Amino acid sequence: MVITELAELSGIPAPTIKYYVREGLLPAGERVGGNRTEYDESHAHRLKLIRAMLEVGKLSIGAISGVLAVLDDPDTTIVDTFDIAQRALSRDTVSGISRGSDAALERVDGVLDRAGWTDCADNPGREIAARVVDAFDRAGHPLPDSYLDAYAASAQRMAEADLGAIAELADPTDMAELMVVGTVLGDTLSAGLRRIAQAYITTERRIS
Amino acid sequence: MVITELAELSGIPAPTIKYYVREGLLPAGERVGGNRTEYDESHAHRLKLIRAMLEVGKLSIGAISGVLAVLDDPDTTIVDTFDIAQRALSRDTVSGISRGSDAALERVDGVLDRAGWTDCADNPGREIAARVVDAFDRAGHPLPDSYLDAYAASAQRMAEADLGAIAELADPTDMAELMVVGTVLGDTLSAGLRRIAQAYITTERRIS
Repeated sequence: MVITELAELSGIPAPTIKYYVREGLLPAGERVGGNRTEYDESHAHRLKLIRAMLEVGKLSIGAISGVLAVLDDPDTTIVDTFDIAQRALSRDTVSGISRGSDAALERVDGVLDRAGWTDCADNPGREIAARVVDAFDRAGHPLPDSYLDAYAASAQRMAEADLGAIAELADPTDMAELMVVGTVLGDTLSAGLRRIAQAYITTERRIS
Repeated sequence: MVITELAELSGIPAPTIKYYVREGLLPAGERVGGNRTEYDESHAHRLKLIRAMLEVGKLSIGAISGVLAVLDDPDTTIVDTFDIAQRALSRDTVSGISRGSDAALERVDGVLDRAGWTDCADNPGREIAARVVDAFDRAGHPLPDSYLDAYAASAQRMAEADLGAIAELADPTDMAELMVVGTVLGDTLSAGLRRIAQAYITTERRIS
């Protein structure tokens, strides 16, 4: 299909599509004849992924580019894909937040210990969690360990659902893609459902 | 204290503090004498809250202003504070995402039913969750109900920890403040811990 057809199919304007090609997010179409460029289903699919990461995940173009580069590398294993994608995704989350203090990192390590999550000390999530611990402190509402542990148990349940969905797929490219999409979109799903659960529990406990 | 002292104490530059006053995020200081304005502890505390919401929560100035207005209204009950704050916070989350389809809203209602979350149909989290369901569909990875239900169970656990921490406070202003701070920062805490849990489970299950 030509670019106007791709634009119509994906709902993304042609100039934006050209911008994604220039930024390396989307492979260039195939030149057929002098000024005609052909795109196919793989371009349409890639555009859907980009849109999900931009709109729902609120990722920067730089983060999306890092994540897609991992998906495009056929030599990357699933574990490596996850690792590299997590680092690309985490850069947006921690941008503009001061580094986690040593005290906060120590508290997060305690959470990982109690959760039984071994060998995770270099995961970017550790730094994210430490920055949040510091932010609660600074805001005058330090978090008790029991709160952090409840969040860890909850995170484990989500991660089990994530990996369960991934394990049902057969194709490694599909698996890697769901890992990335799920990591981005799952955060927003969790935020939405947490809002509803908070409202339900507030009403149920008659807190007023 | 004068503005330079407040800037030093809070780590926020004086021009930024003046900008927050102009935008209504921070009450003006008290004029004492011709060109001297006094700030106090309440200003320092408010600045910490703003910084947490900006840096960790990545909220817009508009969203923060909406949330702070709720905290500043002495007539608002805790339930109302939560409701209004959630709406202000959700505006940022859903900005730029197409509205949830009827099919997706129906699927989310199924999740709420099975979770036993009654009377939550007008919670902004419902629309957020529906948009995520649509985004997974569009990205070519539709979510099974079991996945959504696992996320709902996990959300309930987090919300119980949130409300548990709030219930331990005596002062209604403190309670409302923790509700707001916790809603913003808890999303990021959950994202960080979920990354670690994903890495742990991927390694444990030897997915490669």
